[in-house]
Order: sequence, then structure tokens, then C-alpha cells
Amino acid sequence: MELKGLASEIRSELSCIMSEKPNSLKASLAVVELTIAIHHVFHAPVDKILWDVGEQTYAHKILTGRRALMRMMRQKNGLSGFTSRFESEYDSFGTGHGCNSVSAGLGMAIARDIKGKRDRVVTVISNATTLAGQVYEAMSNAGYLDSNMIVILNDSRRSLHPKIEQEPKTSITALSSTLIKIQSSKSFRKFREAAKGITKRIGRGMHELAAKFDEYARGMIGPQGSTLFEELGLYYIGPVDGHNLEDLICVLQQVSSLDSMGPVLIHVITEDNHQDAECNEKIESDNPQEVLSAGYDDSVSSSVQTRTYSDCLVDSLLMEAEKHKDIVLVHAGMEMEPSFQVLQETFADRFFDVGMAEQHAVTFSAGLSRGGLRPFCIIPSTFLQRAYDQVVHDVDRQKIPVRFVITSAGLVGNSGPVYCGAFDVTFMSCLPNMIVMAPSDEDELVDMVATAAQIDDRPVCFRYPRGAIVRTDHFMHPGIPLEIGKGRVLVEGKEVALLGYGAMVQNCLKAQALLSRLGIEVTVADARFCKPLDTELLTLLCENHKFLITVEEGSIGGFASHVAQFIALNGHLDGTVKWRPIVLPDSYIENGLPEEQLARAGLSGHHIAATVLRLLGRVREALLLMC
Amino acid sequence: MELKGLASEIRSELSCIMSEKPNSLKASLAVVELTIAIHHVFHAPVDKILWDVGEQTYAHKILTGRRALMRMMRQKNGLSGFTSRFESEYDSFGTGHGCNSVSAGLGMAIARDIKGKRDRVVTVISNATTLAGQVYEAMSNAGYLDSNMIVILNDSRRSLHPKIEQEPKTSITALSSTLIKIQSSKSFRKFREAAKGITKRIGRGMHELAAKFDEYARGMIGPQGSTLFEELGLYYIGPVDGHNLEDLICVLQQVSSLDSMGPVLIHVITEDNHQDAECNEKIESDNPQEVLSAGYDDSVSSSVQTRTYSDCLVDSLLMEAEKHKDIVLVHAGMEMEPSFQVLQETFADRFFDVGMAEQHAVTFSAGLSRGGLRPFCIIPSTFLQRAYDQVVHDVDRQKIPVRFVITSAGLVGNSGPVYCGAFDVTFMSCLPNMIVMAPSDEDELVDMVATAAQIDDRPVCFRYPRGAIVRTDHFMHPGIPLEIGKGRVLVEGKEVALLGYGAMVQNCLKAQALLSRLGIEVTVADARFCKPLDTELLTLLCENHKFLITVEEGSIGGFASHVAQFIALNGHLDGTVKWRPIVLPDSYIENGLPEEQLARAGLSGHHIAATVLRLLGRVREALLLMC
Repeated sequence: MELKGLASEIRSELSCIMSEKPNSLKASLAVVELTIAIHHVFHAPVDKILWDVGEQTYAHKILTGRRALMRMMRQKNGLSGFTSRFESEYDSFGTGHGCNSVSAGLGMAIARDIKGKRDRVVTVISNATTLAGQVYEAMSNAGYLDSNMIVILNDSRRSLHPKIEQEPKTSITALSSTLIKIQSSKSFRKFREAAKGITKRIGRGMHELAAKFDEYARGMIGPQGSTLFEELGLYYIGPVDGHNLEDLICVLQQVSSLDSMGPVLIHVITEDNHQDAECNEKIESDNPQEVLSAGYDDSVSSSVQTRTYSDCLVDSLLMEAEKHKDIVLVHAGMEMEPSFQVLQETFADRFFDVGMAEQHAVTFSAGLSRGGLRPFCIIPSTFLQRAYDQVVHDVDRQKIPVRFVITSAGLVGNSGPVYCGAFDVTFMSCLPNMIVMAPSDEDELVDMVATAAQIDDRPVCFRYPRGAIVRTDHFMHPGIPLEIGKGRVLVEGKEVALLGYGAMVQNCLKAQALLSRLGIEVTVADARFCKPLDTELLTLLCENHKFLITVEEGSIGGFASHVAQFIALNGHLDGTVKWRPIVLPDSYIENGLPEEQLARAGLSGHHIAATVLRLLGRVREALLLMC
Repeated sequence: MELKGLASEIRSELSCIMSEKPNSLKASLAVVELTIAIHHVFHAPVDKILWDVGEQTYAHKILTGRRALMRMMRQKNGLSGFTSRFESEYDSFGTGHGCNSVSAGLGMAIARDIKGKRDRVVTVISNATTLAGQVYEAMSNAGYLDSNMIVILNDSRRSLHPKIEQEPKTSITALSSTLIKIQSSKSFRKFREAAKGITKRIGRGMHELAAKFDEYARGMIGPQGSTLFEELGLYYIGPVDGHNLEDLICVLQQVSSLDSMGPVLIHVITEDNHQDAECNEKIESDNPQEVLSAGYDDSVSSSVQTRTYSDCLVDSLLMEAEKHKDIVLVHAGMEMEPSFQVLQETFADRFFDVGMAEQHAVTFSAGLSRGGLRPFCIIPSTFLQRAYDQVVHDVDRQKIPVRFVITSAGLVGNSGPVYCGAFDVTFMSCLPNMIVMAPSDEDELVDMVATAAQIDDRPVCFRYPRGAIVRTDHFMHPGIPLEIGKGRVLVEGKEVALLGYGAMVQNCLKAQALLSRLGIEVTVADARFCKPLDTELLTLLCENHKFLITVEEGSIGGFASHVAQFIALNGHLDGTVKWRPIVLPDSYIENGLPEEQLARAGLSGHHIAATVLRLLGRVREALLLMC
């Protein structure tokens, strides 16, 4: 069969391209046959094909004219790791945070109906995204609106692996357990064997295919999983072996030929370990969460030897847990950082990873707090956006002590704009009861963990960047709680004060070193707190300097706004001090190495120094510095 | 039976208190027996009882020592319309935006287990909240964690009403249809009749009660609904007649006596029209959505004659739909404003109310847009918070033209902090591709609808306040698209410029009138756009005035921050102009009349005028003005 040849070609191609990213490779290999079947039966871009996880889309990219560019994926000026409507007309909607494809696909299906068109809408979802509330909202609405659309559940759980017989780590919700039950059911496994036999023995006469489809459609193979989706109003078909091209094509063809079927869910079981690729290297990883770790296998954290901020967080939480026996940890987001596995093991039943259910994670943390425990809620900046309302109403308005650990704050290198944490300071620091802080280095991080652990009358959050800590000779010490709302001066200078927030304090120090060589001695201060502000420190900086430059790795509306409001209302801006904010630019910053991204954002030490030089009228030196 | 007497007492009490709020009354009457049964079986505050909709909690408030204060509900210094941990120790968690109680309850259950305690956790959810993704996330996680907790689904759908036989308007998702099927099933109705007979004939011997529980537990009455919850890992019991105290108590007692049952869902069917209260007036309303309309029956929109901003929005959308045949409307949020019913009727199958599924609403709108239609997505400011990540990644990052209509922006009178729309300008205006605007009056609103309808290359949002329009002699005109990023000067003055954003332009004009009487002629400008800013206008204001005061009904980080950044980076703050921001204070503003709230927030015309007087050194006059 021609398509089978294509499948092994793509497998081999992917294996070569992705050899250094074993988990991404597995995830992308799992859907090769499914992708071929979809493109064989449906006619993109007229028919709309939507995905919701980056790795699922690699075979799709190869099949839609981007083969030559695959090796440049997730690099500067290269292909995106996700679908993007700006990259190809075959990408009808952008993937990124997951769990959006059913909502978007339903919108397209309704638009098609209203416009009287007849194209088909196919959306592929994965196990991980079935944890997310939005998928439930979308399926429930799809069931009600009853428009024709096809939802394919790519149920990719190392399915036929012996391990599956035990309760696997990945089944973090009841639904996932249900899906696993179907996969591992004897009837499915038997059927799979039988199907192999059948397709070998007989041809593909229409009669046989129709009969096979009938069997799938009646849910005869594994009827246990059908009910949930049917309650939501989707017609359940499956489970189908995701590596059997004949079966996939048969089912898709039958479904596509039906005119008014309403929303259909096709349950496809794929194997992470299904391999027949040539370029295949030995793959060793036991963390199934990493399957989705598009955000982590990049330049920022690629070096194994490097100690990261997350490593320090882990050690610090372990130390605090000695002091405070009531610490519990909640983790949410699309993936879990490998560093956090130690927490999962050590905290055991006091560690709750809820996956892509950020809304639940936040309110659940509030409940743990009201129940008398001391929760830390660990969420990447970009995924905290998905729980903003819960932060406002279930935590901040009720002044419940929950400690938000905001990871991957700021730019994230080749993980690009999808994982960039640009907005958290802005949307957290406008909340009345929230304490908002950011460590300037690993020692400060450890102290802020201790500070947060101690605060028990209100919510608090702190953000830290992805990647390596500042000093290579870092020595772990027990955290010492900081005084709330107190910053510190790191270098005393004159004329110009650089006031950094979080990781940008380091870049202020770099600028200070550069300027010092030019004979300019500037002050560098570490704000530590965005809220409450250190108003004494601010007053001091304003009174003793001609210029105050605030520097942060966040969008407009954050730290700079709090400083500006204070110094404006207190008259410091009335001719006393000149204030210049440096924030992230008003754009999504594309993939690149961290240093490149910082430079593009105008946040490097050189940029900060150049700003100072320009303010001091030394324009030529500023220009030279930027060469 | 003593408890029955209590029930009719509470019904009568509620009927008198709530007589002018028929929909809230219905919702609160529906759960009187359920509330009594819960408090009879469980021992609050040791046992934790959680609710997720305000009106459900009124009987609970009466039963927990707040009877005397009930008439002061939702008024300044009165009881909150919601549960609040600051109001009573019996309120273990705050209601507000709905759909949080299972997450919070699960947190408390896990905390209890960790602490080795044995108290019970009971959370009550309602039909409306089953639409929300968070409830699904929470139930799914509860099923997995398998901790003991009781979830009661208060399924309150005018159940035994003849209308229910047809497809009711309220069933906006497949799940709600399923629930309705159970309610209207012959077996349930028969059982209900039979149960009445039984309790009359026989006593309440333990044997009979156990048998009855057994029947419920086996889902013999209406097994159709059980599967969804069981897939999620909850043990399903029901449906139980929510007005039969014996049955309710029987079921709750049995469940509470079981030691390791895991999470249980008790499906209770209550009737909005179940009435035997004395003070009962005739109730007429056919909008079931209003059952949840805690946000709308208050002082801001109480006068029937008053034309509101929402009325203007409706007329304007109808006019634009004549011009643009491809306009579609998506509505989300806890409730739908009565004004929007016209839209629902006129747009018919181009109007999609998805209820409390804001995440889905936003991505669904993006899908409609990608499908070639022209979506407006209507969401109250406070509920847009629940879809922030979708706004960022499914709309803004992909630069998809979706038009967000942000309703109930700013303070909302006696709807209080739960419905207050304080943060939208802050969290929307930091997004790179978003056009952010706000009308200063009803004419501007109409023009902004036209502007938004015309924009088709990027997302746009505009916010408007709850309540009455500015002019009583308003005449509807077809909207004229505004030039993007252009504000306007309304009054030319000198020395001081007041730059208002949105509704606050009116308060600037009030201040200007006050000051004019004191011989001070100030400039008043209407910014119209927060993003892109009118930089020409800003430059003009800075160059020709000593003081620039920005005024907005929003939190820190919004309009003022954009102005500040521009004028700082362009040197206008370096001694040329003195800038003062007036924003919402850093607190949650409690219930009150709109004017009172504005005064408390420091945003009234008097406050703005006083600020001007102080800046001009006329401190005594400023003090006099505030007396």
C-alpha cells in the first residue's frame, strides 16, 4: 500500500529531525498514520483540520509543503513548533496552549453552516487536553448545536505497553482512567490482532469496510468510554487502532460521507512506542508528562549540568517543608518541568499535579488553604492566564493565603511566544490584596520562598525566569523571610538610578559595569516588591538622582506603572527626577536564543547602558555601544 | 413535622424580603427544603457547606443567625448577596462567579484527610454552573483523588411544569438536555407521586428509609443522567425530589454515615415554581436566565423607563447587521441582561448564548471569525477574566478579528465587588494586537460599534458601564466609524487638562463645570482610545498645559500607564507638564449606590475638581468642595 510507504518515509524523516528530542519525537511519531489518513480522506485547506498540541502537527507540516524547512523548526526565522495561520493556509487555526481546537472548530463549522458551504471540520485532541475544562465546555456546546464536525481523540498512552496494566502515573483524573481501561481491555487487544489478520486476508471491498465501520460505530470494541462523550452529545466511534491505516481511512471515509451526523467523536488509540523508523535512536525517558514538553527541550535549559532556578525552588520548598509541616503543593499547566519530579516524589500525597486544569488548580489551592494547610500553587506565567478569574475571586477578593509560584516568567528562548510569560506582573499587581514580588537571583528566590511560606493572612506571588541561575558557585542556604515591601540598593552611584525588578536586576548590574568603564557611576537597586512598593527607597532614588530608569521583563502596566503612579502622586515627577520605563516591547517576541531575545526586546545590559548614555547626552557612545 | 413548619416560615420570610426581585425569590425558594435538610444532617461550621450561586444561600443565611439582617441584603453596610468568610463562620467559602465550589470543597476535603480530621464537605452546584469547564475539571479531579465529599446538583428547572416537555430555551448544552430528560421522564414523575403517597401512609421506620435510599442509589428512577458523573468518578445518587424533606434527609443521612464512599453526586430536582409561601405575590417572568440575575435587579438598572447603554448597544448592533450581513453574536457570562433578549430573537441562529463557558465563547468566536464571519463577543468585564488566556492566545496572538463588547465595566452599584469590572483595561491593553477603546457616551458607543464592525484585520474591544445613558433626549443614529487612535478635545481651557477615558469623560465635564463657576477654565479631552493612543493629542495637551490629569474607572495598569509611558519616553514629563493619574483605588469597593461608590473611589466630578484646585494651590476651596 502506497500510503504505508509514505508513513515509514515520514517516520524516518521525523526520527532524523527530532533525534535529540526523544519525547517530542515519540509524540509526533504516534500520529503519523492518523495524519496521513486525515489528509487522504479530507481535502485541506478547503476542509479544515485543527490540532491542539504542537508535536501532533509535525507530520501535518511535512505533508503540507514544509518538509524542507523542518530542520529549522523552533529556531529564529524557522518554522513554528505549532500550527500558525501565518505559516500555511493548511493551518486553519493556531495551536499553542492546547484545548482550543474543539471550540475553534465548532466556530468554523457553524460559520460554514451559516454560509451554506459544505466543507468538513476535523479537530484532533489529545488525552492531556481532555483534562481541560474548555474542551468540556466546547464538546457540550457542540453536542447542543449539533453541527457536523469530527473530533478525533488521539489517545496516546503507550497503550499496548505492559506497564499499562497497573495504574499509570499519568491518569490524573477519572476520565483518563476510563480511557486507559478501554485501551487495555482484552476485547480491544483481541480486536486489534483480528483486524490485522483480516486486512491481510481480504481485500478492501466496500462491504467489508462498511461492516467494520459498523462494528466501530456500535462501540462494540470498548463501549465503556462512549458514554461520557455521548452524554455531551457527541456520537462515539471507536476505539480505532491509530496505526492501522486501512481502519483509520475506512472510519474517516464513512464518517465524512454522512451528511447530517452532528458532532462525532472518533476515539483513536496511538502508541508512543510504535516504531519502525530507520533513523531511530534509543529512546529512554520514563516521564510521560514530557510528551508535551515542547516548552522545555530548548536552548534555555538544554544543558544538563546547569543548575536552574527551578532546582533552587525545589530545594527551597523541601527545606521550608521541614519548618512548615502543613505545606502542600499544587501544580498545573501543560507540562511539568523535569525538576519538579523530586517534589512529586518527596511530597507524595501532598503534591497534586492537575495538568491542564489551571482554573481548578487555583480554587483547589484556595480550598486547601481554607482547610488549614499552607498551599503553594506552581503554574507557568503563561498558563496562569487561564485561571485569572479564579485568582481574582477565589483567592484575592477573599484574601485567602495562597502562594503562587509563577514559573517561566519573561522570555523563554526557543519556546517562543506561546510559552512567553509577559503579562503576569500586569495582571497580578492590580489585585488589591496580592503581594507581588520577584527575586533578582537564586538567593533571593530562596528567601522569597521562605517569605511566602510565612505569609498567612493574604495571597502572595513571585515570578522567576526559566533557565540557569546567576552564580555557578551557588550554595543552598535556608531561606530568610524578607521584610514585606522592602527593596535594597546594590550599588551606590549618582545622577542615574537603575531600578530593576526580578531577573532584570542582573541586566542593570551588567549595564552598571559597562558604564563604570566609561567613568559613569550609576546606582543599581533591586525593587524586590512590585506590591507593596518600597516607597522609602523610591523617594530616596528620586531625591538623589536626575534620572530614574525602571527595568522589567514584563509588559506595560506592571512594575513601571506602580512606580510611576507613586512618584507622580508624590510630586517626584514634577521636575525633580526624570523617569524612563524599560518594559517588554508591544509585540510577541519570536523564537531565538535568550540573549538574542533580550536584545530584540531592548532589555540587555548594553541596551540599558545605551539608554543611560543617551539621557546623559552621550549619544555617540550610546551608538557605539550598540554596534 | 417540625422541619416542615420551619420550611414554610423561611419561605414566607423570603417571599416578603424578596418580593420586588421575583427571579431571585424563585431561585432562593427552590432550595429551602434542601438547605434545611443539609443543616439538619450536617453540623456546620465543623462540617463545611459550600454554595456557588448567591441566591441559593439566602435560606442558609437565615438558618445561620443572619435572619434579622436579611432586609439589608446587598445594600451599603448590609449583608452580602453571597456567602463570605468575613460575614459568618458558617460560610466556609465565598460564592460569586459560580462554579468554584467543587474545586474549593475538594481542597477542604483533602486538607481534612491530611489533617486526619473527620468533618464532612458538602458542596451545592446548580444547572448553570454545570456549563462551566471548571466544574468538569474539579469533578474529574475529585473522581481521581477519591476523597469523601458530597456534591449536590440543585437541578432547578421549573421541572414539573408542562413546558418542559418541549425543548426548553435554557438547554444550551447537551448535558442540560440530559438533565431535563431525567426530570421529565415518566418514571421520575410517577416515583414522585408514589413517594408522596408512601410518606403519608407509613411512618419513617429505618427499614423503609434504607430501602428508599437503595432505590435512589441504584439510579433506578432515572438512570440516564448517572453515566456522565460516573465517568468522572462520582457515585451518582438520584434524582431526589428537592421539596420532599423526608427523602432529602434520608438520602443525606445515609450518605453521611458512609465512611469511605469517595465523592458522591446527589442529583436533586427542585422547582422554581414550588410555592406555599404566604407573602407570595404573583410572579411573572419567562426568562429563566434571570434566575441568576443577581447582577441586574439593583439600583443601577432598576428604573424601567431609563434607557441604558445596553439598549443602545442592541439598537446599534441591529443597525450594523443591516450593513454587515455576516455579523454573528456570541454571549457568555453568568447571566444575560434582559436588554439582550431582542438580539437573541432577531439574530436567532446567529446568536449564541453559551452561558458560563467564557473560555469556549472566546475561542468559538475566533473560530467563527476564521470561518469568514464577523463575530461580536459580548461578555461582562468581570467574566472576561475567566477567558483571559483564550483572548491572549486564540485571538490576540493570532491577530484574529474578534470584537469584544465588554459590558458592566467599572463600578456596578449594589451588585458590588463580585460583578465589578475593574481590571479589563489593564489586562486587555497590554496585548500587542488589541485595539482598546471606550465610549464616553451613547453616541460614541454607537460609533464604536460601527468602528468595531469595520475592523477586520485584528481584534478590538470596547467597554461600557452598566446603567443609564447620559442624555434623556438621545436619538438613535447610524454609527459612523471613528478614526483609529484619535481622541478629541471637548472643552478648550488652559493650565489644566482633564483627559478622560470612557464614562469618566462625563465626570471630567462635571468637574469642568464646577471649576468654571470658580473662574477656572480647564481643558477636557475624550481619549476614546487607550490603544493605540492619540499621541498627537497627548503632545498637544502636554505642551499647552501645566497639569495633565488622566481619569478612568479602572484599576492601575490601564489607560494611565499607557499615557505615562508615552509622555515619559517623549520627555514631556521632564519638567514640562505635571501628570496626575486618577484610577480606581487599590481595594474592592463594597455595595452602594453608583454615586456613593464613585465618591468612595474618588472619581466623582467633585473629587476631580478638588484635585485640580489642590494642584493650583487653592487648598481651602478644594476642602470646601468636598464638604
